[in-house]
Amino acid sequence: MPENRQIHLDNRPAGEAQASNFVLVTAQTPALQDGEVLVRHHFLSLDPYMRGRMNDAKSYAQPQALGQTMGGGTVGEVVESRNPRYPVGTKVVGMGGWQEYSVVNADVPGALRAVDTRHVPLSAYLGAVGMPGVTAYYGLVHIIAPKAGDTVVVSAATGAVGSAFAALSKARGCHTVGIAGGAEKCKYAVDELGFDACIDYKEYSDAASLSAAIAAACPNGIDGYFENVGGMVLNAVLPRMNAFGRIAVCGMIAGYNGAPLPLTQPALILMQRLKIEGFIVSEHMEVWPAALAELGALVADGKLRARESIAQSLENAPEAFLGLLKGKNFGKQLVKLV
Amino acid sequence: MPENRQIHLDNRPAGEAQASNFVLVTAQTPALQDGEVLVRHHFLSLDPYMRGRMNDAKSYAQPQALGQTMGGGTVGEVVESRNPRYPVGTKVVGMGGWQEYSVVNADVPGALRAVDTRHVPLSAYLGAVGMPGVTAYYGLVHIIAPKAGDTVVVSAATGAVGSAFAALSKARGCHTVGIAGGAEKCKYAVDELGFDACIDYKEYSDAASLSAAIAAACPNGIDGYFENVGGMVLNAVLPRMNAFGRIAVCGMIAGYNGAPLPLTQPALILMQRLKIEGFIVSEHMEVWPAALAELGALVADGKLRARESIAQSLENAPEAFLGLLKGKNFGKQLVKLV
Repeated sequence: MPENRQIHLDNRPAGEAQASNFVLVTAQTPALQDGEVLVRHHFLSLDPYMRGRMNDAKSYAQPQALGQTMGGGTVGEVVESRNPRYPVGTKVVGMGGWQEYSVVNADVPGALRAVDTRHVPLSAYLGAVGMPGVTAYYGLVHIIAPKAGDTVVVSAATGAVGSAFAALSKARGCHTVGIAGGAEKCKYAVDELGFDACIDYKEYSDAASLSAAIAAACPNGIDGYFENVGGMVLNAVLPRMNAFGRIAVCGMIAGYNGAPLPLTQPALILMQRLKIEGFIVSEHMEVWPAALAELGALVADGKLRARESIAQSLENAPEAFLGLLKGKNFGKQLVKLV
Repeated sequence: MPENRQIHLDNRPAGEAQASNFVLVTAQTPALQDGEVLVRHHFLSLDPYMRGRMNDAKSYAQPQALGQTMGGGTVGEVVESRNPRYPVGTKVVGMGGWQEYSVVNADVPGALRAVDTRHVPLSAYLGAVGMPGVTAYYGLVHIIAPKAGDTVVVSAATGAVGSAFAALSKARGCHTVGIAGGAEKCKYAVDELGFDACIDYKEYSDAASLSAAIAAACPNGIDGYFENVGGMVLNAVLPRMNAFGRIAVCGMIAGYNGAPLPLTQPALILMQRLKIEGFIVSEHMEVWPAALAELGALVADGKLRARESIAQSLENAPEAFLGLLKGKNFGKQLVKLV
């Protein structure tokens, strides 16, 4: 069996996450039992939710265990098999974690999914046609539930979720506005992702001035907001919400370090009769088939061309992850492992 | 026609509302046109929402016009009639405002409703079997939507909304906990209104200590919260919400003076996948018939015995209203006008 390099969580962050929280370990892959396959990972997905799991705090997921391989989504290829449904050569998506190989009992429901790479590139199953894409779908379709002509806004607009949100909302006839960090990202959002407008929050030093810029980009107010960020951006969006507006809360990336990020004007929830709903997409498996079908078609048709930031080789995963938390990535953050 | 004393909004408050914002005016009641009736008001309802309308600010309702009679719910009796469907002697509920009489075209849908006072006292149509009762019903039944055994919490527990909330939620088998200001109110909540427990928020100087007291009264966490107050109470409740908890936002009384009342931990919306929804009951007229039927039966059966704070005579309405905003009332605040 091949040598398998892994990245473990060595210690928990005090405040900001550091490279020293992680440690690179080399292990042997165990011999396969009946039903198991050995997957060689081609790509590892890095996602903001992983920061939350590094804490030993009450949250929606179990904390990442210390001294164990960091969890995470992977796509790869079956290179050894004792499962006839997953022969050698099968391309698969799963939760292989921050390592080069994983041994998986492919008979466990949900453990592995074989994917078709004829029209959709393998890496897209970690982004547009994977968890981030379905996340955008759930928040847009099931919480915001827009009608044609509605104005919808998404923060972290050029990330994997934001990219999918743009394609899905434009397909529904919405006026779609992004919020992102930097002029280059905003240009990309409009030129490549199909946003009608994109606001560079880094140009604004406070919620009031950002809110004015949002108002200018949303002349009819905001009917639906998809929140990936929290903090100043949320406080800037909230006063622009129309009556009966819907806010899907998917991420509060700015709060993971424990810094207080108060919502400054909660009375607007009442004044505008808003509905605000937090969700995590893995609790809504019933929507995945419809979501993946639509997202796969958007990618195959070239209507969703999500950008990827690709780090090379497992040992660079921690640095890429820390950069993701600071918004240094541009599109879906992956680590290429082959 | 009789002389009619009215209270007008004379000027808008800068910060806290003051008695000097109001002025007492004496007018003549106009002669009746066909279809109109003259209603002598027996009771005027005072409600927290009126404070919001005193501001000239973006909200769900038009601001109260300056130099005009303050709006408000009234119950009374038809004393002159040019409408055969509302003969003299009919008991009616309407929006007569802060005055002793009103002239109403009773053919306008929704302008007046004749009520039956055989089993339900007239004043109850301004409280338990009126707008406050239906408010409790909508938030509980349509937003919180509890199942038997759920824990539900309401702030301003001994007010008109809180009293109805207790009867409605106990009828659904919930563990029902109130939050109120003062030991006397809390004792009343448990002894008379049927709350399983009531927490005196005045005993706690910060959200953390109040939150600990809430945790003790809600050993299984909170599934549904009905928010009448905002501020420290909301910040204390939020960390006690269970996964998939629902929060109905009906009032933010503490924020009407413009003081910032931030929500300190919005990340909990995501961590616990909460649904938070603001509403005003007049936008959900479809629920009123079912709500009034259930509330009327609860009052007639003695299961909802809501307390009233009754001020005497129109000229005392401003003082009673200012006291309501400070929580000096005990139960539904009314002004008796006859």
